[in-house]
Amino acid sequence: MSSEKTVDTLKVQGFRASGVSCGIKKTGKRDLALILSDVPARVAALFTTNKVKAAPVLIDMERVKKGVARGVIVNSGNANACTGKKGYSDALKMTALAERALGLDKGSILVSSTGVIGVPLPVEKVEAGMKGLIEGLSPDGLTDAGTAIMTTDAFMKTASASAVIGGKKVTIAGIAKGAGMICPNMATMLAYFVTDGDVPVSALRKALKEATDLSFNSIIVDNDTSTNDTSMIFANGLAGNRPARYATTEYQRFVRLLTEVSTRLAHMIVKDGEGATRFIEIRIKRAASDKDARLAGRTMAESFLVKTAFFGGDPNWGRIMAAIGKAAIKMDESKTDIIFNGVPVVKNGLDTGMEKEAAAAIKVREVVVTVDLRMGKGTSTIWTTDLSYEYVKINSAYRT
Amino acid sequence: MSSEKTVDTLKVQGFRASGVSCGIKKTGKRDLALILSDVPARVAALFTTNKVKAAPVLIDMERVKKGVARGVIVNSGNANACTGKKGYSDALKMTALAERALGLDKGSILVSSTGVIGVPLPVEKVEAGMKGLIEGLSPDGLTDAGTAIMTTDAFMKTASASAVIGGKKVTIAGIAKGAGMICPNMATMLAYFVTDGDVPVSALRKALKEATDLSFNSIIVDNDTSTNDTSMIFANGLAGNRPARYATTEYQRFVRLLTEVSTRLAHMIVKDGEGATRFIEIRIKRAASDKDARLAGRTMAESFLVKTAFFGGDPNWGRIMAAIGKAAIKMDESKTDIIFNGVPVVKNGLDTGMEKEAAAAIKVREVVVTVDLRMGKGTSTIWTTDLSYEYVKINSAYRT
Repeated sequence: MSSEKTVDTLKVQGFRASGVSCGIKKTGKRDLALILSDVPARVAALFTTNKVKAAPVLIDMERVKKGVARGVIVNSGNANACTGKKGYSDALKMTALAERALGLDKGSILVSSTGVIGVPLPVEKVEAGMKGLIEGLSPDGLTDAGTAIMTTDAFMKTASASAVIGGKKVTIAGIAKGAGMICPNMATMLAYFVTDGDVPVSALRKALKEATDLSFNSIIVDNDTSTNDTSMIFANGLAGNRPARYATTEYQRFVRLLTEVSTRLAHMIVKDGEGATRFIEIRIKRAASDKDARLAGRTMAESFLVKTAFFGGDPNWGRIMAAIGKAAIKMDESKTDIIFNGVPVVKNGLDTGMEKEAAAAIKVREVVVTVDLRMGKGTSTIWTTDLSYEYVKINSAYRT
Repeated sequence: MSSEKTVDTLKVQGFRASGVSCGIKKTGKRDLALILSDVPARVAALFTTNKVKAAPVLIDMERVKKGVARGVIVNSGNANACTGKKGYSDALKMTALAERALGLDKGSILVSSTGVIGVPLPVEKVEAGMKGLIEGLSPDGLTDAGTAIMTTDAFMKTASASAVIGGKKVTIAGIAKGAGMICPNMATMLAYFVTDGDVPVSALRKALKEATDLSFNSIIVDNDTSTNDTSMIFANGLAGNRPARYATTEYQRFVRLLTEVSTRLAHMIVKDGEGATRFIEIRIKRAASDKDARLAGRTMAESFLVKTAFFGGDPNWGRIMAAIGKAAIKMDESKTDIIFNGVPVVKNGLDTGMEKEAAAAIKVREVVVTVDLRMGKGTSTIWTTDLSYEYVKINSAYRT
């Protein structure tokens, strides 16, 4: 599916980035990225909830606690996950190499990895690539970094937006990778944001959580989570805006801006979903609570049968009804309506006889399915893909 | 995959059954079944946990409360689910037609349906088929009933076994249907058991629950549950054994016998799983608890990525590690071992370098994956299938 591009606006004052090839990927494609703030930046990050966490995730979880950092080094082609003690020291070494080359204190640089798991990281290749990586640092470098974090991605994912916040123009730029939650060798969703906004670190953490829940945490390609998932934001405050303290108008505007950028990146990940032929927006309305709405949407998006029906262009409302019925939510079949791209196929739990019209309406790339539960005021929107032959093909191919 | 047949031993004293075509299926295949006890039998049943329940399920849930019944009438080709008030009265009418024809009291006969959902049940066809159904009743009729409950099943599923319990030979015979939890139009797992054992109704309920947890509740084809799932047992006591009261030796033997028969039927359902090319046994060992073991096994069996890897014959242990890490269980990556058909690929969370051997070992129809968590004494065995092109094909085909 098609890519969105907003490459021209990726520059954010006080940030430089770089992306080079250091030889981890056998193809010779870019596989090493660096994002750097010229001044110490506030940092917040969210990590995978999987109990099996990659070495770089363990290191970052410690380092982000102090709320300040200078940047992040990322390699693709090797996840450095399930690699034991050696993996941990390799990840530490990656940060040390960057810190030393940049003349920074220990702990200033964060680290991520994505790619095959269970294989030792060839850290000597990172070392060999360091000189070129540093030399490549440029205010325009975020696109190079964007390509260097790709694995099975069909296209690069970048987005940015600006808004006046606290009296100044504040810009947020972001890059992301991911095609399915997980690539053939099990990989990862990574997202990095840089902003010149002045946002206290406690507010920055909350803003990242809010925006991520509405974007990256609202997309589902399959039902797996990775060992490496990471979303991270650096805020250097150079915009000179009135600080976006938590719960102020400035904060709300900042969250809106971050949600906009992260939602655009999230949609790109879904559109690049492995084998995806359709982009499905699931809108749950009038659930008993937002939590119920979210659970209903997730259960639909994770159902093998709902996803294969979308692939077939079949408005199979019975499968949706069964998926919602399976979710641990309050529902009453006789109050439930289901609408496919504007065509109501179920009213009060019963067939409206409009399936043929619905089948015609969903023979397109983008499908909106609305489920109205009439139980309360909860709402949720989830984005997902269909389940196609191509998904099975990509994910059943033997790795070597 | 191949069928097991134990047709010759399906007869149980005091039970008759029948299976005919009444025209609900357009193909003219059998679609109406009746199982009847000559004397009032103790009855126990388990039903779908889906909140959206078919009309016959709602009726049965009431009727089994009194613990005694004479039999069950079942149609295939129409699930009578999501059919509102008319569906409920149609299901009631099915039972009334059978009760009247047999001269039985109202409430003596239970009812099930399986097939397309959301379409009104053509109850007049059931009425027209009633005469032939009753005339066809025979002590050998359980195989006819077994074919009449099939929908997308590739083969009929029957099993039986006998054992000496409480001084007498007790026989349990069972029939089941299901190919995937759900057929193209969303359908169902149905299982019916008849036994001549003398089992008090409270013990019968517990026995059915125990046996079902170890059999039907331990198989996963996809992650959907149906509106119609039903498992039911009738015990007429004609064996004259010492009653198998709860927690006695007789009870334990009866549970073992019922588990044997139901496990054989459950395995047939997995082997008939939509598009299945492999039969996967997942053994979780030394989990912190049986509950943890079960959850780990289920999460693996429901993972899109684990299932596609099995289809590809790829011993992709990273996906298994990630699936277990995602499950809400106690685990420590560095204590986890993973073994594919006897070949250890992960030891203490690390690659053993034996993936090639493992890949060779799983290029067969039946694969055993053992995950040893070393956290406690919990164990669980789950049976599942791979996720193939054929699964996507079957389930994406438009229904009309």
